[in-house]
Formats: sequence, structure tokens, C-alpha cells
Amino acid sequence: MKLDFSVAVHSLLYLDESRPRKITSAELAKSLQLNPVMIRNILSVLHKQGYIEGSVGKNGGYLLQRPLSDMNVGELYDLTIPPTISYARFITGDSKGLTKSDTDATDISANIGETLTDLFTLADTDYRKFYHRFTMTDLKNDMHGHGYFINLVNKQN
Amino acid sequence: MKLDFSVAVHSLLYLDESRPRKITSAELAKSLQLNPVMIRNILSVLHKQGYIEGSVGKNGGYLLQRPLSDMNVGELYDLTIPPTISYARFITGDSKGLTKSDTDATDISANIGETLTDLFTLADTDYRKFYHRFTMTDLKNDMHGHGYFINLVNKQN
Repeated sequence: MKLDFSVAVHSLLYLDESRPRKITSAELAKSLQLNPVMIRNILSVLHKQGYIEGSVGKNGGYLLQRPLSDMNVGELYDLTIPPTISYARFITGDSKGLTKSDTDATDISANIGETLTDLFTLADTDYRKFYHRFTMTDLKNDMHGHGYFINLVNKQN
Repeated sequence: MKLDFSVAVHSLLYLDESRPRKITSAELAKSLQLNPVMIRNILSVLHKQGYIEGSVGKNGGYLLQRPLSDMNVGELYDLTIPPTISYARFITGDSKGLTKSDTDATDISANIGETLTDLFTLADTDYRKFYHRFTMTDLKNDMHGHGYFINLVNKQN
């Protein structure tokens, strides 16, 4: 879900901006305007993947484990939004071929599923490449001066 | 919705394969394995945009109005899947800035909405460019020999 990606990006930017203070998940949740339960999973993923370190107890909280410039936006996207496993609900026809001979004067109904799946899969792979062109520093720069990101992309294209 | 795109692609391929026979929406719906009501809107859009011509009555039905090679896949994608108007449900923080001073030690909560919206919008623009690289002939070729499309993209990249 795209929201998970935003949770990760927001949390990392917040931890960066708050350095060297340790940040609790409650404080993060307030900034994200989400329930702490909704961000706990993503914080756990970021922790496991070495983006943040966390400690519990009285002076506990989260800290960044590496600089924003070492965090690729595409890697964060892939981490928080796994590729679609099945495009079945977006696909027409009868890819199982069960009714082929009855219903379809052509082979399209039986064959279009594979073609559309390939198209959508290749498009998604291409889509993810876009995010891989940037680091979290680019997003930080844009947050401190909106328009930075649009200009950057226009220059790249 | 991605299904609308598949409905358009499937219908056009079916009309092409069935030439010069006129095809009723009932026959199309059978091949798509969808209720005729679900495809009527898209057929109407394709008709208005000059992809197909239709006639009603005893010998009525749809015909292609131009060859598949004149149909760009990206144009069909843009026609059937309009760009997302709002990313609000994928965005964290308080972009209205109402609670900024209370809830957030940084400006992130108030500013991240615009940055994420720009990121998602630019990524979507880039995504659509992928589809524009192909015509309906490419999809037809793949349907008659799966793997054609994957090879084509690998060659392009």
C-alpha cells in the first residue's frame, strides 16, 4: 500500500531532522497524524533493514542508522510496496481456457491474460526504476524548497 | 481502474481478429467474460474517440475504425485510466498545517504532503510514458506468440 511508503519516508525525514534526539513511536505517530499501531510494522521493517536503530525503556526511542544520502528512494519503495503478485482482477477473458471453444470465435479470451500480465509486470518494473533515481536527500531538499524535485526530474529527462 | 484498460484492449483485439464481421456487445462481453453492462461505457468511449464504429438494429454491431498499428497503447491507457486526482489517502502528516505548532517539532508534517504529491505525480507521468512506447500491434503479436513483448522491452532498454 502506498501509505506504507509515505510512513517510511516521513519517519526517516523526521528522525533526520530531529537528530541527535531519540524519537518515540508516539511522537512519530503524532507528526504522521496516524495511529501508532499503523506505523509500528513499518518501523519494525526499517529497523530490521538497518535504516534505524531503536531502544526501549525510559530514554528509549529511534535514531537514524545511516545518512539520508545513503538511502535510495526506490529501495524504500520496493521494501514497503511489494510487486503485485496477481493481476487477475484487472484482466479480462478466460485465461483458464475452460470455455474457450464455446464462447470465443478467436483465441483472444484464452490468451489475453498472459499478454496483459506481461504488459503490467513490465510497466511496474519500469515504474520502480523511476524511484531508484533518487535518494532521501532529494526528498529532504524538496521539503525545504518545494519545486526542487520537479526541477530535478525535468533536468534528468 | 485498470480493468477498463483491459476491456478496451481486449475489445479492440477481438474486433481486429473478427474482421470484417460486425460484433455485438453481447458477443464481446462473452469473450471478455464480463457482464455487458460493464463494457458498455468503455465501448462508448472508444466509439466517441474514433477507435470503433457501431450501428444498431438487426445487422448492427461494432467494427474497427482504424488499424491496430494506428492505436497507441499509451493513448488507450490515458483514455481509460485518468490520472489520480488526489493522493490524499496515501499521504501522511497534516498538510493543512492546522495542528503544526502543537504536534510537530519540525515542519515535516505540514510540508511532506506537497513533496509526496509531486513525487507520486512525476512517477505516474513517467509510468504512462512506458505504455506510449507501444501500439496495439505489439499486443497482438504477443498474443500470438507470448514472450514477444518481453523481448521487445528488453531490446528497447
